[in-house]
Amino acid sequence: MTLRVGIIGAGPSGLAQLRAFESARQKGAAIPEILCFEKQDDWGGQWNNSWRIGLDGHGEPVHSSMYRHLWSNGPKECLEFSDYSFDEHFGRPISSFPPREVLFDYIKGRVEKSDVRKYVRFNTVARHTSYNEATQEFTLTVEDLKTNLTETHVFDKLVVATGHFSVPSVPEFKGIKTFPGEVLHAHDFRGAERFYGKNLLMIGSSYSAEDIGMQAHKMGAASITISYRTAPMGYHWPENTVERPLVTHFQGSTAHFSDGTQGDFDAVVLGTGYQHKYPFLPSALSLKSPNVLYPGNLYKGVVWQQNTNLFYLGAQDQYYTFNMFDAQAWFARDVMTGAIDLPPLAQREADIQLWLERQAALPDHDAEADFQTDYLRELIDATDYPSFDLDAVSQLFKDWMRHKHDDILGYRDMVHRSVVTGTMATKHHTRWLNAMDDSLERYLHGPSQDIDTDTPDAVTDTLVAR
Amino acid sequence: MTLRVGIIGAGPSGLAQLRAFESARQKGAAIPEILCFEKQDDWGGQWNNSWRIGLDGHGEPVHSSMYRHLWSNGPKECLEFSDYSFDEHFGRPISSFPPREVLFDYIKGRVEKSDVRKYVRFNTVARHTSYNEATQEFTLTVEDLKTNLTETHVFDKLVVATGHFSVPSVPEFKGIKTFPGEVLHAHDFRGAERFYGKNLLMIGSSYSAEDIGMQAHKMGAASITISYRTAPMGYHWPENTVERPLVTHFQGSTAHFSDGTQGDFDAVVLGTGYQHKYPFLPSALSLKSPNVLYPGNLYKGVVWQQNTNLFYLGAQDQYYTFNMFDAQAWFARDVMTGAIDLPPLAQREADIQLWLERQAALPDHDAEADFQTDYLRELIDATDYPSFDLDAVSQLFKDWMRHKHDDILGYRDMVHRSVVTGTMATKHHTRWLNAMDDSLERYLHGPSQDIDTDTPDAVTDTLVAR
Repeated sequence: MTLRVGIIGAGPSGLAQLRAFESARQKGAAIPEILCFEKQDDWGGQWNNSWRIGLDGHGEPVHSSMYRHLWSNGPKECLEFSDYSFDEHFGRPISSFPPREVLFDYIKGRVEKSDVRKYVRFNTVARHTSYNEATQEFTLTVEDLKTNLTETHVFDKLVVATGHFSVPSVPEFKGIKTFPGEVLHAHDFRGAERFYGKNLLMIGSSYSAEDIGMQAHKMGAASITISYRTAPMGYHWPENTVERPLVTHFQGSTAHFSDGTQGDFDAVVLGTGYQHKYPFLPSALSLKSPNVLYPGNLYKGVVWQQNTNLFYLGAQDQYYTFNMFDAQAWFARDVMTGAIDLPPLAQREADIQLWLERQAALPDHDAEADFQTDYLRELIDATDYPSFDLDAVSQLFKDWMRHKHDDILGYRDMVHRSVVTGTMATKHHTRWLNAMDDSLERYLHGPSQDIDTDTPDAVTDTLVAR
Repeated sequence: MTLRVGIIGAGPSGLAQLRAFESARQKGAAIPEILCFEKQDDWGGQWNNSWRIGLDGHGEPVHSSMYRHLWSNGPKECLEFSDYSFDEHFGRPISSFPPREVLFDYIKGRVEKSDVRKYVRFNTVARHTSYNEATQEFTLTVEDLKTNLTETHVFDKLVVATGHFSVPSVPEFKGIKTFPGEVLHAHDFRGAERFYGKNLLMIGSSYSAEDIGMQAHKMGAASITISYRTAPMGYHWPENTVERPLVTHFQGSTAHFSDGTQGDFDAVVLGTGYQHKYPFLPSALSLKSPNVLYPGNLYKGVVWQQNTNLFYLGAQDQYYTFNMFDAQAWFARDVMTGAIDLPPLAQREADIQLWLERQAALPDHDAEADFQTDYLRELIDATDYPSFDLDAVSQLFKDWMRHKHDDILGYRDMVHRSVVTGTMATKHHTRWLNAMDDSLERYLHGPSQDIDTDTPDAVTDTLVAR
């Protein structure tokens, strides 16, 4: 009987799983019966952004956390598919930090080239999963959001590819209930235009706080205050941006910080992170983890320890993204088909423990990049995913972090070399700080004649802190 | 074997069901095994408001649609529990339109007086329901949001009391994706303070659009434009408020209306209504209905036609609220215990059809109030819920609607007489338009010495349109 594989989510991870099977099929292998469920009306996951906040048009939690004017915050050369290069997609070199729509176009290009859309049931949300130990089958209840009909499907293997940057962590703050201005989580942030002339408080000290803060700066916010719990990010911020320790409480529009300082704010954005949440799974199958590079209980970061018919993709904190999801999907595919033999439970546990110990000892961000590089290397070595120069990519991450440290407003103007094709990125026609149109069309077809034109010599060759 | 009853939701409807059984117990009846699941950490449903928008602290959709400075928009005399009066709770007469915290206090007072909190599992969300036709049992999967553990419970009867004003309807509008200001649904509105000096666009023509629009007026918005699909509300709006037909599209911050007019806006609030949504139910048990006074497929508005072990409370559009939920809960209780014999399916269907036909012919709002009054009368006549003068309440609704028509900013300053106790409400110490503190404490203990003081003679005795 043909293996039946269910995939939940058609974002970068779910699409990687479809692509992994398609790749095997193209090489002549028999592939399983595949069904992928996607609650949005198109694929792309995070990259399929929405203007809605909170709940979507069907009353389901909005998946994407992206916003207008989001440009990649890492070099595209670090996430390039090794089986589908940027050169192949765009037909010419592009810059290293493209905006959302450009990356979405790239993701779609690969899967549109393969014939995998037929596997995806759109507007269909996973509701409930049960596992029968005797038959070793999953029964998955899904709901068609257009008809509201629920139905069940039986699978031998289940792939959880719903991501973990969609369900916000929203802690309580004393007095926030009567803060008169806007209060929202980064997940619900859709653009910083309305912060023009405003005093913005960001709470958090990771990518969300950093990038939304600088979006507000770019759009003319009067001031940006970034409040951290543990340590400041310490970038060379623009003059209107400061870091403060954690908010102790709000009084009206005033936030009080733990160092005794205070400030009046027009709006608060919580960059307080996301939770792993899988409401369609019973707790026995549901990953609980903080956002770390190596969550426990997943062999090779992919296979659920207590039930090796269950797979998670992209459950890690991420230096690598698209290419890591690929390597995981190729690995999961080979475990499902038996091409990779799993060692027994104890041996898998020992392997996980080695990774967890190494993770616990990581001294800095450079070491983190190397850690995930080594993880990825293991997956790629175990499968036929096209190999690439992983050490070069790890070096790219380190260069990128140094650039960010040197110039938080300018690092996106730097260019990097593809390890897949050897192509050097081109400088974009407009500096990120001046780019006020984030469309694919403007990106590809040159600067407009007005606000976001840079004359070529205005493009910084050496980046300086502003 | 003792009947096992599961109740989903501990808002006004779920609490009514608990109270219905408690009332029977106090009269000496044996009552079922009861278990009520509430996803929030306290009871009160809508009245247990939150500063969060979108998803709550556990990553579940936020339940309450309420906001700061929400004062009852109907007379409290129309929703008074006939077994627990406002006089009993507050010990003295109060005004007819109290703020949220005061009504929340009242709801809690009744259930705290009974010993029903023991039946409620807080922080516990319903995930999935199945029904076994052979055993006539429901299996309900719930998740403890604090431990993330899922567990299943078996019930003979299931009461759906999750309300239907929590999951927003959020239609698409051309160009809204690039509207630079804030865009949110009324469900995520938490206060109008930040609309001071701003130009607000409300889309919708029901309670949300009306009240949020006037909240913005009260808080000093520069202008309020209310866009309707079918017909304007036609109130005597303040000078800075206009009604326009439906938005055809947005271009930047400009909204274009179907009458060819346009306007620039700082923010858009969608008062576009709510959906019936029961993600924890299979489609065969899930009510689908627009927001109407008599949804189909529920006998006496309560009993699911195809499975009479399933009950819905509060699924109607509402003139009556708390007291209607009570009457429904008393009726559901008596059906569950067999005190009320259900007629056969065809006879129930004929009864539903009569109501639906009458509903379809309702000529105006006054007739709607009478319609729901008659519905309530049937329920109360069938049970031992303490009767009250329903015709007097129906007249109260009509008076209230006339007051609103005469003075949309002043109707909350009117006073009404309780049909339960005969007590005349007192005039509140501060006119609604001037009341800038909506706390229970300020409500009960008199005006502050600053912004929201009215001298007694400043209280309008006759209301005039402003």
